[in-house]
Amino acid sequence: MQRSMDSELPPLSIKFPPAHPFDDDKLHEECGVFGVIGLTDASNFVALGLHALQHRGQEAGGIVCHQPGQGFHSARRFGYVRDNFTKESLMKTLPGPLAIGHVRYSTSGSKGPTQIRDVQPFFGEFSMGGAAIAHNGNITNAIALRRELIERGSIFQSSSDSECIIHLMARSLQRDIPERMEDALRRVEGAFSIVAMTGTELIGVRDPLGVRPLVLGRLGDGWVLSSETCGLDIIGAEFIREVAPGEMVVITEAEGIDSRFPFRPRKPRFCIFEHVYFSRPDSILGGRSVYETRRQIGVELAREAPVEADLVCPVPDSGTPAAIGYAHESGIPYGMGIIRNQYMGRTFIEPTEQIRNMGVRLKLNVNRALIRGKRVILVDDSVVRGTTSRKIKEMVLDAGAKEVHFRIASPPTSWPCFYGVDTPERDKLLAANMTEEEMTRYLEVDSLRFVSLNGLYRAVGEAQGRDTEHPQYCDACFSGEYPVEPTDMIDKGFQLKAAE
Amino acid sequence: MQRSMDSELPPLSIKFPPAHPFDDDKLHEECGVFGVIGLTDASNFVALGLHALQHRGQEAGGIVCHQPGQGFHSARRFGYVRDNFTKESLMKTLPGPLAIGHVRYSTSGSKGPTQIRDVQPFFGEFSMGGAAIAHNGNITNAIALRRELIERGSIFQSSSDSECIIHLMARSLQRDIPERMEDALRRVEGAFSIVAMTGTELIGVRDPLGVRPLVLGRLGDGWVLSSETCGLDIIGAEFIREVAPGEMVVITEAEGIDSRFPFRPRKPRFCIFEHVYFSRPDSILGGRSVYETRRQIGVELAREAPVEADLVCPVPDSGTPAAIGYAHESGIPYGMGIIRNQYMGRTFIEPTEQIRNMGVRLKLNVNRALIRGKRVILVDDSVVRGTTSRKIKEMVLDAGAKEVHFRIASPPTSWPCFYGVDTPERDKLLAANMTEEEMTRYLEVDSLRFVSLNGLYRAVGEAQGRDTEHPQYCDACFSGEYPVEPTDMIDKGFQLKAAE
Amino acid sequence: MQRSMDSELPPLSIKFPPAHPFDDDKLHEECGVFGVIGLTDASNFVALGLHALQHRGQEAGGIVCHQPGQGFHSARRFGYVRDNFTKESLMKTLPGPLAIGHVRYSTSGSKGPTQIRDVQPFFGEFSMGGAAIAHNGNITNAIALRRELIERGSIFQSSSDSECIIHLMARSLQRDIPERMEDALRRVEGAFSIVAMTGTELIGVRDPLGVRPLVLGRLGDGWVLSSETCGLDIIGAEFIREVAPGEMVVITEAEGIDSRFPFRPRKPRFCIFEHVYFSRPDSILGGRSVYETRRQIGVELAREAPVEADLVCPVPDSGTPAAIGYAHESGIPYGMGIIRNQYMGRTFIEPTEQIRNMGVRLKLNVNRALIRGKRVILVDDSVVRGTTSRKIKEMVLDAGAKEVHFRIASPPTSWPCFYGVDTPERDKLLAANMTEEEMTRYLEVDSLRFVSLNGLYRAVGEAQGRDTEHPQYCDACFSGEYPVEPTDMIDKGFQLKAAE
Amino acid sequence: MQRSMDSELPPLSIKFPPAHPFDDDKLHEECGVFGVIGLTDASNFVALGLHALQHRGQEAGGIVCHQPGQGFHSARRFGYVRDNFTKESLMKTLPGPLAIGHVRYSTSGSKGPTQIRDVQPFFGEFSMGGAAIAHNGNITNAIALRRELIERGSIFQSSSDSECIIHLMARSLQRDIPERMEDALRRVEGAFSIVAMTGTELIGVRDPLGVRPLVLGRLGDGWVLSSETCGLDIIGAEFIREVAPGEMVVITEAEGIDSRFPFRPRKPRFCIFEHVYFSRPDSILGGRSVYETRRQIGVELAREAPVEADLVCPVPDSGTPAAIGYAHESGIPYGMGIIRNQYMGRTFIEPTEQIRNMGVRLKLNVNRALIRGKRVILVDDSVVRGTTSRKIKEMVLDAGAKEVHFRIASPPTSWPCFYGVDTPERDKLLAANMTEEEMTRYLEVDSLRFVSLNGLYRAVGEAQGRDTEHPQYCDACFSGEYPVEPTDMIDKGFQLKAAE
Repeated sequence: MQRSMDSELPPLSIKFPPAHPFDDDKLHEECGVFGVIGLTDASNFVALGLHALQHRGQEAGGIVCHQPGQGFHSARRFGYVRDNFTKESLMKTLPGPLAIGHVRYSTSGSKGPTQIRDVQPFFGEFSMGGAAIAHNGNITNAIALRRELIERGSIFQSSSDSECIIHLMARSLQRDIPERMEDALRRVEGAFSIVAMTGTELIGVRDPLGVRPLVLGRLGDGWVLSSETCGLDIIGAEFIREVAPGEMVVITEAEGIDSRFPFRPRKPRFCIFEHVYFSRPDSILGGRSVYETRRQIGVELAREAPVEADLVCPVPDSGTPAAIGYAHESGIPYGMGIIRNQYMGRTFIEPTEQIRNMGVRLKLNVNRALIRGKRVILVDDSVVRGTTSRKIKEMVLDAGAKEVHFRIASPPTSWPCFYGVDTPERDKLLAANMTEEEMTRYLEVDSLRFVSLNGLYRAVGEAQGRDTEHPQYCDACFSGEYPVEPTDMIDKGFQLKAAE
Repeated sequence: MQRSMDSELPPLSIKFPPAHPFDDDKLHEECGVFGVIGLTDASNFVALGLHALQHRGQEAGGIVCHQPGQGFHSARRFGYVRDNFTKESLMKTLPGPLAIGHVRYSTSGSKGPTQIRDVQPFFGEFSMGGAAIAHNGNITNAIALRRELIERGSIFQSSSDSECIIHLMARSLQRDIPERMEDALRRVEGAFSIVAMTGTELIGVRDPLGVRPLVLGRLGDGWVLSSETCGLDIIGAEFIREVAPGEMVVITEAEGIDSRFPFRPRKPRFCIFEHVYFSRPDSILGGRSVYETRRQIGVELAREAPVEADLVCPVPDSGTPAAIGYAHESGIPYGMGIIRNQYMGRTFIEPTEQIRNMGVRLKLNVNRALIRGKRVILVDDSVVRGTTSRKIKEMVLDAGAKEVHFRIASPPTSWPCFYGVDTPERDKLLAANMTEEEMTRYLEVDSLRFVSLNGLYRAVGEAQGRDTEHPQYCDACFSGEYPVEPTDMIDKGFQLKAAE
Repeated sequence: MQRSMDSELPPLSIKFPPAHPFDDDKLHEECGVFGVIGLTDASNFVALGLHALQHRGQEAGGIVCHQPGQGFHSARRFGYVRDNFTKESLMKTLPGPLAIGHVRYSTSGSKGPTQIRDVQPFFGEFSMGGAAIAHNGNITNAIALRRELIERGSIFQSSSDSECIIHLMARSLQRDIPERMEDALRRVEGAFSIVAMTGTELIGVRDPLGVRPLVLGRLGDGWVLSSETCGLDIIGAEFIREVAPGEMVVITEAEGIDSRFPFRPRKPRFCIFEHVYFSRPDSILGGRSVYETRRQIGVELAREAPVEADLVCPVPDSGTPAAIGYAHESGIPYGMGIIRNQYMGRTFIEPTEQIRNMGVRLKLNVNRALIRGKRVILVDDSVVRGTTSRKIKEMVLDAGAKEVHFRIASPPTSWPCFYGVDTPERDKLLAANMTEEEMTRYLEVDSLRFVSLNGLYRAVGEAQGRDTEHPQYCDACFSGEYPVEPTDMIDKGFQLKAAE
Repeated sequence: MQRSMDSELPPLSIKFPPAHPFDDDKLHEECGVFGVIGLTDASNFVALGLHALQHRGQEAGGIVCHQPGQGFHSARRFGYVRDNFTKESLMKTLPGPLAIGHVRYSTSGSKGPTQIRDVQPFFGEFSMGGAAIAHNGNITNAIALRRELIERGSIFQSSSDSECIIHLMARSLQRDIPERMEDALRRVEGAFSIVAMTGTELIGVRDPLGVRPLVLGRLGDGWVLSSETCGLDIIGAEFIREVAPGEMVVITEAEGIDSRFPFRPRKPRFCIFEHVYFSRPDSILGGRSVYETRRQIGVELAREAPVEADLVCPVPDSGTPAAIGYAHESGIPYGMGIIRNQYMGRTFIEPTEQIRNMGVRLKLNVNRALIRGKRVILVDDSVVRGTTSRKIKEMVLDAGAKEVHFRIASPPTSWPCFYGVDTPERDKLLAANMTEEEMTRYLEVDSLRFVSLNGLYRAVGEAQGRDTEHPQYCDACFSGEYPVEPTDMIDKGFQLKAAE
């Protein structure tokens, strides 16, 4: 009998997710997590926090909460936080002083539509009580673990890798839930920033490398966990510190924070792409302003790859801070040569008489009056497949630009991410298949330059650039050096970079 | 920490079920099951079969199917079969020659709204493949089993008793799925008629007492399992035989029926109330026409409890066959003194100026012209709490009836059912708390008579009446003699009838 | 420019109506109306009244009400009354002591889906205030009136014939709204029973022939208008009298009923088919019980068309009273040989391996045990196209009946109705194209007999039968004698019966 | 009887519009219009054009089209264009080479939720055929016209002022539809840019002052009308020219453009606020780039109101071009001190423990790392009620700014607009009630300066500034000089500015 993990699992309730948003040819973070303890109607705070983290996942969101005397409640919904978790009828079904939440990105393509049962947080009932768990990242040995657990008699209800953690916890020999979670997470490989809860405890964990972010905040008598600091800002919480790589914090109303380190210590390798694109510019990562880092990448780019031109123009919105930096460093005027439609969204039906670059036009329009007759530097954050870059270049030339120079605020993206980011397969990555020069010709632009890996490291504050022996960040998407072995992918035939 | 099994389990996806239909003060069957193997697009047949079984459960329905090369697919929906499983967009997601389905009744009150995850069939993925299972009946030791399974590390995803079977199967030592099911069912107590499937097998099982019905049919090269024969009729399938009490049939396209008897043999005890009310009048149960049995109950009633009157009038629709029998036997004219609104349904908002018996008026209206000035015999199938009977009597008297005589086509219902029927608690059952005479006074009618237990047995063809040593049917709701010990209920404090 | 009235009018809001219910090959009443004045939250009463009249129209319903100081409010919805006008959130938007409502039937076929803007009541704002109007019937000169009004500058917003009345009222020279309505209705031809309202008046009107029913009731200090008496029964209102043919009643809280007769008097011609099929059996029409009339038609049939047989079996549910009468008169036992699925509804997807008579099977099943080996008399209310009759006959024979005799409780339906009933075109009416003998052969039954037109008249109490000079009823569907000339239809080419 | 125009009109179909978007304390354009003739499936182009014009109205949208041989079709929907007019199932009901569309803004407050029947385009059927009409602007004598038309017997179906035009056309003595429209528009006062259609003609009209924009474009063999040039850009149409103030263009496929001037000529007075805020920065108005004009306003502001500071920071997104201009002219660095949440939207439930400035936080977050310790110039486009400005100032100070200086890219807004813009009443406008100095104290900022009216005129290219005798633009919101008398408002008691 032919079987596949996906098709074997019938949907508990098929709901078609919202149409995939405009393909913007970017890498995408897959999740954001948020948790609150010690505040009245914690779910209302979680809803706000998830809204601030919406850029980390737009497809679906979920909240689990606990009200003493009533037990756990939860809701999972497809769509934006603002469209679901703003309704009083829903929010009043989510009472209590302790709640966690999750937003997830719509992963595209072959996997088919997400089922509502795949939407986190996941819940499990153990003999000593219930627990809910939400995670940002990716378990790289999930398939192997799943196979093992099914052999032992576990029944899986979702196709999510996160469900493994609940089943491992159910089989742990330990006595209380945080200890069972420690036990379970020691079997898990990959990148994960977890927010979890029991009936009385809010729990945060980061994997030993600290690949994904997780921060701790305080609001009144309550404690807050959030993927990014912008989640603290929206509710007016004070930023206390990051959860450390490899740390587990177990927070109770009565005793506050109990910090544990259940894993073998390793040198941290935070994801450098969080600085480049994933995180919001108003967030603080590793003590550094994301906006300032991006602006600084622009400065590095202007130094590494100067060019004579009349206008520095960002590809909105993600290229904006680097463009400001580039303009400032180069002295070339900054201007909004490309205008973004703030109502962008779904795919429209293409008229019979085809419209050139319709996909991009739905999102962007060229400010002709500004562009006409000018030599334009376009600053973008990254090039993934190059499809959008080509179209933007065409629109800018059609509008009368004399020259088009691309400046990219990250090194060439030539390897897929297995740590919680949605990347195309390697043969779809432009930089995996072409040199910078070939890409310049392919995009038909006057010049194309990427910031160097060392330039990027300098922009994040490493004055000496990248430590090639012990890199300070996870930069696998640029370098092909994976700090955690992608077990499941290797089983499926993925070829690691040959040792040099 | 306070915990309850229900509140602990957060909803995977909260959907409010349709408002509970008009409280008709009846006992209600909780489920119907249907399965097909060997017919193209089996799900289309299952949809029709479930539609014919809709009277066994109106709240929700589900279908699981299997398409070779594609694996399993499923859909679960709240509401009527006709409103969900008639849509081409849905049905074409349910391909393949093998499918099972389930309809369930909306259990009322304290348990809260059903979650979509509680809707059967349930699915489990085992190391040797997947299986889906749907059942009609009730597992009387489900809570004890659930506690044991959680101790062993199983994660429950629903509050349904049926999920135990899947988890027991997951932990079985046996090699193939039917054997694992045998293994699991030997741990299960209670009443169950099961329809299940693997990727290649359609499976039907009845508990050793055969409390709930399950029949086998044939259509072309395919096989069909259905709770009742009316499910065969709608698709034009030929009735072959009943699945025997304690029998498991494992049906494959290639080899047809493999019949097994995994349980210790016991004397069958089919539910006698299926004859009285649950089953459709056009079904055949145990070789007997339900319509004819009900008509015969009316004949017995006319013999046991004659009265002088001008009109025999059924309480529609369930009292109709018995009323026809009563009229025929007594020679008193038969007439439709009460008209049923075929569009009955939800609860309307009661106007400020209250309407007497509004609940009943939404469903029934008295045919004044026929009733006025007459001595009326009202024939109903049963009296549960007596609330509706009182209101009907009032309406009939308001319409000008001279006398009202109730004749009830079943013995007094004085014990709850624990085998898959939704019954009020004992203190709500009128007959558990009053004698026939007290009930007559309580209902304020000119006379009230129930058919005797022996009369009922005669009507189902037991010429000698009930065998008190070895009763031929399960009649616990009348006699208080429970053929399977209701373990969980005894744990919760239910008092069995004292031995006499 | 090619134009058609239907396509010219763009939908204000396209909403697809519920799928057309099972084609039962019946004529269908197109509307029911209801109105209340002088009761708190009159809309709640209207909702109940419309629910009781749901058999007169299932596609959509609407309510308009008036609250002093707030003005008019309204709601129109597709679907059953119980699914819409039971929601507190909706009903509390419909306040005040004065309300009218309407249910409409889904007319099938070429006209396309109904728009919500076509759902009555219609509303118009005049210089002296607003008025709403709902009607049951059909305006036979609507197209001509519409053409005239458009010439004068009226803008139509719906494709409904009723909107003409509002526009005629808007252009009337009269000073108050009831007078304007009189003025307008004198231009209108056809059959109409109208319920209308201003901010202070409830108005009821019947056309001069009184083709459609309309009754007046009293509840406490309030007054009620309803298409049938069953609408009074559900709210416990007392039946006062019928609104007379050609009468207009203008009811105010302060002064009660003001009765006017705005039309030239004519001899009434009430629709005889209301007795045969449209009205509910528990209603009283023209002082006669509909149930009793139908039962009496069965008696007439047994006298006119006796046959030796073993069982009298109704085609449920509409054939039931006549079958009871036939059985009683003939002495042949009455039995439920055909069982109706109470959950009937939509069209299911037909399986690849076709099921014989699937459409009928969804609605009806034969009670084989009762039918087998018997000579069966099937009593049905009418034969329209004959499609369902054929299928029922097949099912009954398949179940083993020895003989099948059809007895029809109305004369052959050979002419379309233009007075508010949905009838097929003439060439689709079986009786318009075949003699009784041809129909018997076409249906392949052992015998087929219709009650005679005189028999029908006797059953409605006309001991002398039909007065051929001055028929007591409108029986155009049987006789082809149209009491009001169908102007629009003649314009479209309809051929009246040649004078004899 | 108490009556109000709004409450008198019962809803044809109540649908609750999407919750009002975040109150951003801005003036809002109320509509955008778009039309296409001569392109296959014109509705697909209209959908794209409306999407590009979505910033002019977010509440609802509608499209009417005409297919020869089939007549007119239409659809109206609440919500964004991208959520409705992207569905193939809907778009294929909108065939033909000629279509017009409309987006409308959700006007807030006392008027209650918009009804779908109020959504344009409006349609009317005349004796010579049908016509549809959509307009951007406001009819200032609509109430007077409506009263007159009702007296004459017109039945209004909406509460929209635009419906007057259809009724005036219905009563015109002229022979063809364009002539009837000319006739009707000569009775209409106010500001209007109209896109209309018959079965064969696309029609565009601007009022004699040309207050609202309307441009003409060409794509292949087709013609396009759009409120702004960005609507041409999205479909790749070439900008031909603006429709002139007072011009009516009647476009047919066969004969192209027929230009008429039906009104008495007047000196144009285009709305200057379209340059300041309403139009998209990539549009061209009156031959001028909106982006460049806004940038130039920033330059003027830097000259008129310099201040020593460390950072020029836009209030996103509308303040961005002016901030770029200010920074460039002043030499002070430009930076993104305030970050906008791109997923902003609905109102969240405010937690019990209140969050300071929650409304603004949902939309904006301060980039603390950039702001801290700096003297910040905040550049915003306008101040309406001042509520948001106060909150932004607080957030910026909380983040550690040393000084906060507001620079506003428009003069003080002290008069309401009656020409199609949603403005608060006069007593809610901050600048109507305070001097610049009082506003500075009220907002508690270190300084607050508006660009002068002359500075604004210079930025739009009037080197000599405003011509006080014959102002070149409509600037009533700043000057109180209304070029068209607001008849209805004066009837309601509005006080014009006293002559000086």
